[in-house]
Amino acid sequence: MAAESADTGFQLRSMVKQDGTVELSLLSIPTPEPKPEEVIVRLLASPINPSDQGLLFAGADMSTARSSGEPGRPVVTAKIPPASLKALAGRLEQSLPVGNEGAGMVVKAGSSAAAQALVGKTVAILGGAMYSQYRCIKAVQCLVLPPGTTAAEGASCFVNPLTALGMVETMRAEGHRALVHTAAASNLGQMLNKICLVDKIALVNIVRKPEQVDMLKKIGAVHVCDSSSPRFMDDLTEALSVTGATVAFDAIGGGRLAGQILTAMEVAANRTAKEYSRYGSAVHKQVYIYGGLDRGPTEFNRTFGMAWGIGGWLLTPFLQKIGFEAAQKLRERVAAEVKTTFASTYTKEVSLAEALSVDEIAVYSKQATGEKYLINPNKGIR
Amino acid sequence: MAAESADTGFQLRSMVKQDGTVELSLLSIPTPEPKPEEVIVRLLASPINPSDQGLLFAGADMSTARSSGEPGRPVVTAKIPPASLKALAGRLEQSLPVGNEGAGMVVKAGSSAAAQALVGKTVAILGGAMYSQYRCIKAVQCLVLPPGTTAAEGASCFVNPLTALGMVETMRAEGHRALVHTAAASNLGQMLNKICLVDKIALVNIVRKPEQVDMLKKIGAVHVCDSSSPRFMDDLTEALSVTGATVAFDAIGGGRLAGQILTAMEVAANRTAKEYSRYGSAVHKQVYIYGGLDRGPTEFNRTFGMAWGIGGWLLTPFLQKIGFEAAQKLRERVAAEVKTTFASTYTKEVSLAEALSVDEIAVYSKQATGEKYLINPNKGIR
Repeated sequence: MAAESADTGFQLRSMVKQDGTVELSLLSIPTPEPKPEEVIVRLLASPINPSDQGLLFAGADMSTARSSGEPGRPVVTAKIPPASLKALAGRLEQSLPVGNEGAGMVVKAGSSAAAQALVGKTVAILGGAMYSQYRCIKAVQCLVLPPGTTAAEGASCFVNPLTALGMVETMRAEGHRALVHTAAASNLGQMLNKICLVDKIALVNIVRKPEQVDMLKKIGAVHVCDSSSPRFMDDLTEALSVTGATVAFDAIGGGRLAGQILTAMEVAANRTAKEYSRYGSAVHKQVYIYGGLDRGPTEFNRTFGMAWGIGGWLLTPFLQKIGFEAAQKLRERVAAEVKTTFASTYTKEVSLAEALSVDEIAVYSKQATGEKYLINPNKGIR
Repeated sequence: MAAESADTGFQLRSMVKQDGTVELSLLSIPTPEPKPEEVIVRLLASPINPSDQGLLFAGADMSTARSSGEPGRPVVTAKIPPASLKALAGRLEQSLPVGNEGAGMVVKAGSSAAAQALVGKTVAILGGAMYSQYRCIKAVQCLVLPPGTTAAEGASCFVNPLTALGMVETMRAEGHRALVHTAAASNLGQMLNKICLVDKIALVNIVRKPEQVDMLKKIGAVHVCDSSSPRFMDDLTEALSVTGATVAFDAIGGGRLAGQILTAMEVAANRTAKEYSRYGSAVHKQVYIYGGLDRGPTEFNRTFGMAWGIGGWLLTPFLQKIGFEAAQKLRERVAAEVKTTFASTYTKEVSLAEALSVDEIAVYSKQATGEKYLINPNKGIR
């Protein structure tokens, strides 16, 4: 990639085209002049979260990815299944920037005192378009990282930490006393496990492989159920019975898991029921689907009475609902515990151009648990 | 059936047995002496609602029904699929009375003034065990029918009317401005249609047969979508777009309909969206499943963003939530409009013994729209 001056910078873009393909490319864009309340952040670290991949790949089949373009300026094209295209009408032929969150150094600031105070500071930021060398953002949106914290350490301050904290807050607000989490071996799952240990909340972890049981137990998890085990439903029912968990957060989305969780919750609830009710237990049982690791259809038998719900859960509406002050408290907790409770691990750091290599895409697009990439948009540039 | 004195009466019972069958029979039980606040109602009409069939048949395959017993005292046995048995553990070997609601005449009363005032009155009652010749109940639970109303006319004062009114109240309480109803040609659907016309609420009716479109249009329905039509999704999306309905009440439960409704709601919501959101529309879209006409699994592709919910909806918890006074207002409206808005129609009136004939069961267990039976527990008895 050619070096760029601070006046311009590369930015990763994703565009769904009329011909039913998604095109990923790097654009060179001018760095804006910050307004009085704004700063320019030179981004040094931005994770590729599952939630970024939705916007990035637009549901395309990435096994069809083909690369073209000049050296250092790759262009990747992949085919979108026709069934997914209808839902993408709203973004057709629009070149969209990607990257929910990141961290970097403030290299320029507007005239306000708040903005000027940030020059030279390492900050974490949220708000899209983070797969960019430079990002103009309001000073008030910058979370200043504690001294001695690197950009890589602060790159994932928002999406996973606030999602994990949001699950715990939702559990409390809706009157549940313990919770269930699926794909629990993920970065987010490990984070949630740490929060629950610190806050003394019972957590039932559901994983998909036996080795993930050991990994979570090593970091202190008490209840870990392996959905690939023949004993899964019995183990899960027992854990739900012991903990009294009646809300679950599910990253899988597709398949039968959400229904299995509700079924096990119902069996656990009926263990303490005093008399038979034809409508099942009166205890409300809830599964929130917040991810789509399995993009297939969700399927369930309704063998869990009538007091149940399945729904979508998303961080931004949750933060809006609790309001700025409550959200700010959560953000401050993340900054204070960024090297402990909210520490993330990455398998690889790549440049913007490397992130658009077909070989790297083949790895990170799998969203395998424990395979997480970090983009350094200024890697290899000066 | 032999005539019984008022001291004893026949009562229909359902029992799930250890051997995996359900046994339906008539027991002769003593009529209790009413306490001061209680009355004895001689039941003359009690509908067989879908919600009664769950308790009655216990999920058994009624095509396996076999009859035994003496003339007038039939005993029917049918096999329960093994998959359904686990959920029935709570009612094993218990002889349970059936029948949510009914109407009849007060033939005896306790010493209180409230109870004595009801003697000779035709009343509607709710509370189970209505497939009985005599039912002891608190006077305060009796809804006195307007003069000139027969027991048959007042037999369905609670389940369908309060469910229909509960849907409208839920819609209002949760901030939706119009609603969707499935299996809309049912007695309940016609009732809901009448309520919405009177209350000027936009209603999108979903039916499963072309002839049901005409039937509903004849009684004033504005939006009727036929799910068997190839144009169904387009018709539904258009109706949702026009009405702005974002909540649906689904009697079907199984299959893909709930997901189709959410998908169409999402497309309708995005028609007015100003910019593309990768997470879909921010409008919350809700489907409440209140019945299970299709007992198969519920299946949906999550092609409707993140602001959605699917859950169970049940009348009793709804009434508890709104409280006695609000519920009483709904009950009084039903009594006042029992011959108009809340009128029900039945295909056949049967005695308790006839209700346990294998031939009649074959008809009413289908829960076909428009095929509704009324039991007269005192039919053929003096």
